[in-house]
Amino acid sequence: MNNDKSRQTLLGIVGFGAFGQLAAAHLGEYFEISAYDPSPGLAKTAQQLGVTLSSLHSVSQADVILIAAPVSSFEEVVSEIAVACNPGALIVDVGSVKVIPSEIMRRLLPNHMDIVATHPLFGPQSAGPGIEGLKVAVCPIQGRRHMRLAAFLRKALGLTVIMTTPDDHDQEAAVVQGLTHLIAKVLLRMGPLPTRMTTKSFDLLSEAISMVQHDAPEVFEAIEKANPYAETVRRRFFDLAASLSIELEAASTTKPHNESGH
Amino acid sequence: MNNDKSRQTLLGIVGFGAFGQLAAAHLGEYFEISAYDPSPGLAKTAQQLGVTLSSLHSVSQADVILIAAPVSSFEEVVSEIAVACNPGALIVDVGSVKVIPSEIMRRLLPNHMDIVATHPLFGPQSAGPGIEGLKVAVCPIQGRRHMRLAAFLRKALGLTVIMTTPDDHDQEAAVVQGLTHLIAKVLLRMGPLPTRMTTKSFDLLSEAISMVQHDAPEVFEAIEKANPYAETVRRRFFDLAASLSIELEAASTTKPHNESGH
Repeated sequence: MNNDKSRQTLLGIVGFGAFGQLAAAHLGEYFEISAYDPSPGLAKTAQQLGVTLSSLHSVSQADVILIAAPVSSFEEVVSEIAVACNPGALIVDVGSVKVIPSEIMRRLLPNHMDIVATHPLFGPQSAGPGIEGLKVAVCPIQGRRHMRLAAFLRKALGLTVIMTTPDDHDQEAAVVQGLTHLIAKVLLRMGPLPTRMTTKSFDLLSEAISMVQHDAPEVFEAIEKANPYAETVRRRFFDLAASLSIELEAASTTKPHNESGH
Repeated sequence: MNNDKSRQTLLGIVGFGAFGQLAAAHLGEYFEISAYDPSPGLAKTAQQLGVTLSSLHSVSQADVILIAAPVSSFEEVVSEIAVACNPGALIVDVGSVKVIPSEIMRRLLPNHMDIVATHPLFGPQSAGPGIEGLKVAVCPIQGRRHMRLAAFLRKALGLTVIMTTPDDHDQEAAVVQGLTHLIAKVLLRMGPLPTRMTTKSFDLLSEAISMVQHDAPEVFEAIEKANPYAETVRRRFFDLAASLSIELEAASTTKPHNESGH
């Protein structure tokens, strides 16, 4: 086994939070994994997942580098990887937005690296027992290894691969993730939701909310602030809510039975 | 079979729309059913369900009368039933709100009738292949036959019975149904929702919306206008949405990296 391990491709995970750990759990049988994270207290988790914790410089020398760091530190992390990485390395990010991170990677990383921007449309909450059949968006940015990566995601991990561009991704994600998180935020502020006299559709709504309510604050930040289309979608949602509110208040002052002649 | 039928309890369904038909489909083996509806074109459906279409007066003479008429015509319908019904009949309504209809039934119907206000927390969309395990709220209004009715709903139909009062029901339903329908209305106005790059939580949200989007307009009217608690819940939802909107716009003018010193 040790001999096999030594011949395995090295995977460096930059950012060993909830998603970095999920990735390690599913990729451990295909790669020898090292990970970097500035947070303390990750030694036990790393050990359980067979991951070696190391410096950012060292992790950046892997064959494949997976960036699972928050948007707020993304540019800084990519700058450091750019200095340390080996020629021919493949770099893959997994953030919830794609336009800004892709532009940063293209600008800061050497030309000889392959760059693929991805967005696994799931997290620790939705992955549950397994990830087979779940979706991942894949955007080729530089080089040609997106083909091999897509094949690996499909065949080895059983994911449904959606090939797209950062711009198309962010437009659609602004609606998909933007709306889910906005609605979840509003409903969570309404206080504990009923669980007794509930309908099927309300149960589905509650389940949707419970899946995103434990997401790291960085995810909400990324979705609402780092997606160039998020503000338009959000404004549209709030404007439509406001006009529906006005309609309903207007309607409630003219009771229908005042108009009925019989 | 005809002999058995002639000894069966007579059930009169007032309002043979989507819910009246669903009720007939599930109650046909326990009752001999007649139904009244002012809309034309129901003969074929009635025949398929083994239901005799008849006048409101005639239907009101059944042993058990099920009112599945819209809130807008509820008072008128109850007035006519009050005149025609037999002593000792059991009257049951199935609307989405309970305070106002209960008050109308108590006020207009004779003292010798048993009255039970119910709200099956499902409809043709959520009933799907079967109703077993689905929920129904039951409010005793007059007489004692709510016990036998609850036992029937539990044992014969396999429903989960929630015994409650019209006031408690409307408070909880204002949140459960009010929010589901409000969110559905806003999202439907946003246009066709994405189906490709979707997350699990967005899929649940879409499913919740699709379950209520085909509800009759009367259902939305009842939920938003005939529930005394709906306006408070709605205002709270819109106020929280507006304040979240203000927070997000304020936050987006102060980008986080302006404050980071390194």
